[in-house]
Amino acid sequence: MNALTFEVLAKDEGGFARRGRMHLAHGVVETPVFMPVGTQATVKSMTPADLTEDIRASIILGNTYHLMLRPSADLIERMGGLHRFMSWDRPILTDSGGFQVWSLGDLRKIEEHGVRFRSHIDGSAVFLGPKESMHIQRQLGSDIVMAFDECTPYPATISEAEASMLMSMRWAGECREHLPVNDTQALFGIVQGGMYPELRIQSLEMLSAIDFEGIAIGGLSVGEPKEEMMAMMDALAPHLPVDKPHYVMGVGTPDDLIEGIDRGIDMFDCVMPTRNARNGTLFTDDGKLNIKNLRYAEDPRPIMEDCSCYTCRNFSRSYLRHLYMAKEILSSRLNTLHNLHYYCDLMSRARNALEQGEWPEFRNRFLQRYRDHA
Amino acid sequence: MNALTFEVLAKDEGGFARRGRMHLAHGVVETPVFMPVGTQATVKSMTPADLTEDIRASIILGNTYHLMLRPSADLIERMGGLHRFMSWDRPILTDSGGFQVWSLGDLRKIEEHGVRFRSHIDGSAVFLGPKESMHIQRQLGSDIVMAFDECTPYPATISEAEASMLMSMRWAGECREHLPVNDTQALFGIVQGGMYPELRIQSLEMLSAIDFEGIAIGGLSVGEPKEEMMAMMDALAPHLPVDKPHYVMGVGTPDDLIEGIDRGIDMFDCVMPTRNARNGTLFTDDGKLNIKNLRYAEDPRPIMEDCSCYTCRNFSRSYLRHLYMAKEILSSRLNTLHNLHYYCDLMSRARNALEQGEWPEFRNRFLQRYRDHA
Ligand SMILES: [Zn+2]
Ligand SMILES: [Zn+2]
Repeated sequence: MNALTFEVLAKDEGGFARRGRMHLAHGVVETPVFMPVGTQATVKSMTPADLTEDIRASIILGNTYHLMLRPSADLIERMGGLHRFMSWDRPILTDSGGFQVWSLGDLRKIEEHGVRFRSHIDGSAVFLGPKESMHIQRQLGSDIVMAFDECTPYPATISEAEASMLMSMRWAGECREHLPVNDTQALFGIVQGGMYPELRIQSLEMLSAIDFEGIAIGGLSVGEPKEEMMAMMDALAPHLPVDKPHYVMGVGTPDDLIEGIDRGIDMFDCVMPTRNARNGTLFTDDGKLNIKNLRYAEDPRPIMEDCSCYTCRNFSRSYLRHLYMAKEILSSRLNTLHNLHYYCDLMSRARNALEQGEWPEFRNRFLQRYRDHA
Repeated sequence: MNALTFEVLAKDEGGFARRGRMHLAHGVVETPVFMPVGTQATVKSMTPADLTEDIRASIILGNTYHLMLRPSADLIERMGGLHRFMSWDRPILTDSGGFQVWSLGDLRKIEEHGVRFRSHIDGSAVFLGPKESMHIQRQLGSDIVMAFDECTPYPATISEAEASMLMSMRWAGECREHLPVNDTQALFGIVQGGMYPELRIQSLEMLSAIDFEGIAIGGLSVGEPKEEMMAMMDALAPHLPVDKPHYVMGVGTPDDLIEGIDRGIDMFDCVMPTRNARNGTLFTDDGKLNIKNLRYAEDPRPIMEDCSCYTCRNFSRSYLRHLYMAKEILSSRLNTLHNLHYYCDLMSRARNALEQGEWPEFRNRFLQRYRDHA
């Protein structure tokens, strides 16, 4: 039994978009899929019941960096692993910790086999590299483990981007050595190469030489213009292995997801729906809605008329605005519920369009309406 | 049809404790009952679904003072009333606003027909008296309206307490004039009189001359020693009208509730289960548990072994401690769910003991175990 099997159920004839299914140790994931981000062993303000019953998330993401620092991977392992610790029995993908070391760690120093840094929580010295990341992700017990890499800064010269990519590729090999093919945890390699298509394709080729269960595209949505991001996905789309799932990391807005699917992407994660929810920004088919706006003070309508989430079934924009203005905890909760429901439901609509052979129409209709109001 | 009908279903033979049932415009309330506090049109961090399905609350409390200032009673009325605004279809009791004027309002000035003060939110000038409070509570549309009174400060001399009580009694009459007997909103009078039993009994007699649907005891749990609070309830217990519900306001700990039932009290409200939850303090039959404590870092047990709440069914003390230490929103939510479930379930256990004629045994057993560990 493999840790991951992937089947393509339907494909857009004229393009790269596809409808797939992943089998993982903790269950089945229908793709394209959005994975809510559960940084500190919780998708902020949500319970597992919300995520399964209302949002219908089939897989969530956990952050190795945060969990290793607090409460520690040792503790989570002793408590039975991340699934049991947070009471989530569906699949989990954990990132490698690399991205947060670069964005949150202090006094970073890159060495041959990883990075030395100080914890942003208590300043303690920590070393994290391919070996350590694999060990920690094994302790966490995630279904999908991400290779430890460097997220190339933006902007970067071509030689900086190349050096960074080559280091990540060396580390990718080390990751596979420390987490050999097994029947419970799949390992994904991550394409790097900055905003240079030739480096990206080289990176993908180098990963292909290693036996990964899936391919991720890293280093996007790091501050570059949207066209550059799309150009990188365009360059990679024809080369991505058709028999493996494709995951673009940390992307993005609802229209980014649709554009990504169009470029052969199967898996997405992003903090946007959860973080924006807490700031009062709500997603709808007509673009973003800022609940703080005075125009909603006495608006009796739900966030989005045809949304079936608990928030939209029960509460008006007027009430949601009141909760936001009064800084009530329930505001974060109801907003998060809607946004995650919206993202996961959008993926469900995309899967349906792919099954029905109506992808181009769905994509065009969605993008036009969404961007008309954005 | 009356706005409130009350029946006593069972009574402790040797004492004042009773098992009752209230019929209100929005449904039936079994007593003794604990009412979760929903200050700003939300029981902090809880949805109506949590309150009905898991906590099984049958009635909640709303705060007139907070709601009149934000989002305003006019807005709530235009949005269809408080029930519809917050999507709660069971009974609601609203307080009069008096207590918060005293604790939160700035530059208070008592006049013949109410109090002039400044909003703690924006400093605007507001006047609130019996007439205004009745008007606002009618706009909110609560099932039980509380008379506007002064919560006598503690400590107070006997003449201060008497003057304050007499003013509250004049205001009680004005409240009934402005909210005559009707078929949707019941009105409760509030006994005042500080820590002087003779004033308390005089206040109760004066209220009896007015046609209230229920009697509340106010001005307790304001800083006095617990023995004084119990002494006031002891003094009033033999005089409370047996055919009306008895409500002690703002009380208290689980053992206070049991002691209150023993003195003939049917209804309770308190911010303690919700506020303490957010501070990491959890209630159990063995007293309070502070989830921050290092001893829980790897404790795999639920908060309370035989609790049937969602939190206890799914999460360990270890996980709850992690959420608290990481300042996660889910911490407030899961802790609140347990504490409110605990309070409401304790009332259910009390009702059951009263029905079975086993009140004294239940009371003694509970108090001994709870206080052994407190
Ligand atoms: Zn919704
Ligand atoms: Zn519990």
